[in-house]
Amino acid sequence: MTRSLTHVRIVGAGLIGTSIALALRSAGVKVTLCDADSRAESLAKDLMGDQNGSEDGLEDLCIVATPPDAISTVVREELNRNPELRVMDISSIKVKPVLDVSTSGLARSRFAPTHPMAGREVSGPESARGDLFQGRPWILCLEGVDSDLLALVEEVVALCGGIPLKRSVEEHDRAVALVSHLPQIAASLLASQLSNGQGSDLELSGAGLRDTTRIADSDPQLWAQILAGNSQALRPLLISLQNDLSRVIDELDNPAAMANLITAGNRGRAEIPGKHGGQARNYTYLAIVIDDKPGQLAAIIEACAAAKVNIEDLAIEHTPGQQTGLITLAFSPEDSAIVAAHLEKEGWKVHPSR
Amino acid sequence: MTRSLTHVRIVGAGLIGTSIALALRSAGVKVTLCDADSRAESLAKDLMGDQNGSEDGLEDLCIVATPPDAISTVVREELNRNPELRVMDISSIKVKPVLDVSTSGLARSRFAPTHPMAGREVSGPESARGDLFQGRPWILCLEGVDSDLLALVEEVVALCGGIPLKRSVEEHDRAVALVSHLPQIAASLLASQLSNGQGSDLELSGAGLRDTTRIADSDPQLWAQILAGNSQALRPLLISLQNDLSRVIDELDNPAAMANLITAGNRGRAEIPGKHGGQARNYTYLAIVIDDKPGQLAAIIEACAAAKVNIEDLAIEHTPGQQTGLITLAFSPEDSAIVAAHLEKEGWKVHPSR
Repeated sequence: MTRSLTHVRIVGAGLIGTSIALALRSAGVKVTLCDADSRAESLAKDLMGDQNGSEDGLEDLCIVATPPDAISTVVREELNRNPELRVMDISSIKVKPVLDVSTSGLARSRFAPTHPMAGREVSGPESARGDLFQGRPWILCLEGVDSDLLALVEEVVALCGGIPLKRSVEEHDRAVALVSHLPQIAASLLASQLSNGQGSDLELSGAGLRDTTRIADSDPQLWAQILAGNSQALRPLLISLQNDLSRVIDELDNPAAMANLITAGNRGRAEIPGKHGGQARNYTYLAIVIDDKPGQLAAIIEACAAAKVNIEDLAIEHTPGQQTGLITLAFSPEDSAIVAAHLEKEGWKVHPSR
Repeated sequence: MTRSLTHVRIVGAGLIGTSIALALRSAGVKVTLCDADSRAESLAKDLMGDQNGSEDGLEDLCIVATPPDAISTVVREELNRNPELRVMDISSIKVKPVLDVSTSGLARSRFAPTHPMAGREVSGPESARGDLFQGRPWILCLEGVDSDLLALVEEVVALCGGIPLKRSVEEHDRAVALVSHLPQIAASLLASQLSNGQGSDLELSGAGLRDTTRIADSDPQLWAQILAGNSQALRPLLISLQNDLSRVIDELDNPAAMANLITAGNRGRAEIPGKHGGQARNYTYLAIVIDDKPGQLAAIIEACAAAKVNIEDLAIEHTPGQQTGLITLAFSPEDSAIVAAHLEKEGWKVHPSR
């Protein structure tokens, strides 16, 4: 691929903007990153290291990585800086931003609506990572976009490792209503029921509850714009869910009806394709049971350093009322074998994953 | 602990029964395992290796590890084998099995209702593992249970590495309705909506949808018994969910109402206990940008130890091929202030969470 991208300006140093900045920077593209929030901008610039682009010269492309309702305002401001502006956005809805931008003075051919499907329940530059988009779908709505901008957008997606998927803005909004916005509402509604728990009910929480409600940690201001901005596509899906829920309540005492509910869920799950699921990382996990007291974690990390292996990831799991904890460490398969032997020799309780 | 458990009979070679068998066997207890399904029984026995107990002699304890509706039938059959029978069950509901068993001829003092909170969306002996219960809550409803049986049950839980939590049968069923059965219905209803997707909509599926619907893979026959068997505790929760869903549909175009929905979900998530139960998390997070090279993590952990603070949780974000990484550390609010000052003085790039 001929490199046409040399300098990119990113407005919005949140999770997505900063992750794109990290990916492009490590591919050698000059990146200028800015954010109205000075804390986010400063953290993002630290993450970028000392190679953050200076402000001199005009950029080939401006990536607007703000929440959807701010896009048209940013586009107006950027047009004042650079009348030759070409823009791509990354927001989770597409019909409304295209409408909004049409009033900003930017030609439709110079605005490329895109959406990387790589959100997380966490937000902000502290959650950013340069491989966030590796192997993830990146939806491109490129009807009416000029060929120069089209090439720039495809280069951004390729450098980030995303899988380009072309859709119309309407197809996009219909699909994400089903695979993203409906699950968000279901998870938030479910999580909000937990506030009705009595006494120590929540002590019995397990992995099922945690997974089912994970995305309920999402940012309220961002998601308010997404959900209200896509209400037209969402409403029929919510009404279908409401009808099915009412039927479950009516038939709750009937085991055959409950079996049908679970079977319908099994069938729906089978519809989720396996492919664009993000690049699988080839890590081997070691579970280590520790006494839950200060110094244990440091001792394990030290033991790993002594074995000269690199810890790829680490999770700490505590259990209610327990005197022991579980630390899970991720290693490359080669390092895993080395470190497991080393830790066992030192007397740690090591359980390799199957 | 004095060992009183020498020989256990387990009826039901599914995920839970086989996992208990593996855990007890590796602790040196003689285990006899049987199942009405000969394929499950034979697979489970293979997993157990050649140390599966022979049929000679009577057992100290019978663990009934069948779906809930089969418990009383199994108890009747086992009483014929052994009039001195003592039983514990492991099913996901407790009020109904206790009622059922009361008609079987077994004294209430000889039936211990228990529930290890360690289910998975997978089932069968092929998914069993001896460490399935390590560090997981195991609910014990021991009112009216004789002291010999009580000691046996506590020994099983201890040998499996479970964390005993005492509840009445009513408290148990109310709690699991909220933290397990309601999430199951929500996940199954959500997954079943996916069958309404058009064309290539599902190609855009991401991690949020996968996590939110993971438990929708559950077994229909088992869950039919659980849900219908706990309908009394479940119904008010489902009606509350239904009311909240109706309000969301009414207010879908209103961003402020949608922000409230997400905020209520954030609040509910915060109710899920973290370390040592009961208490919701109150951690302060520090994001620290590091050079992604060996020794950095150990150096930070050492600096925290020098500041005499306790690391409550830790996450590593790093990107292959990138020069920087991010470590997020969780502290109590007091420790956080101490350690942030200490780390900054040492030259680390520290960004406290907002």
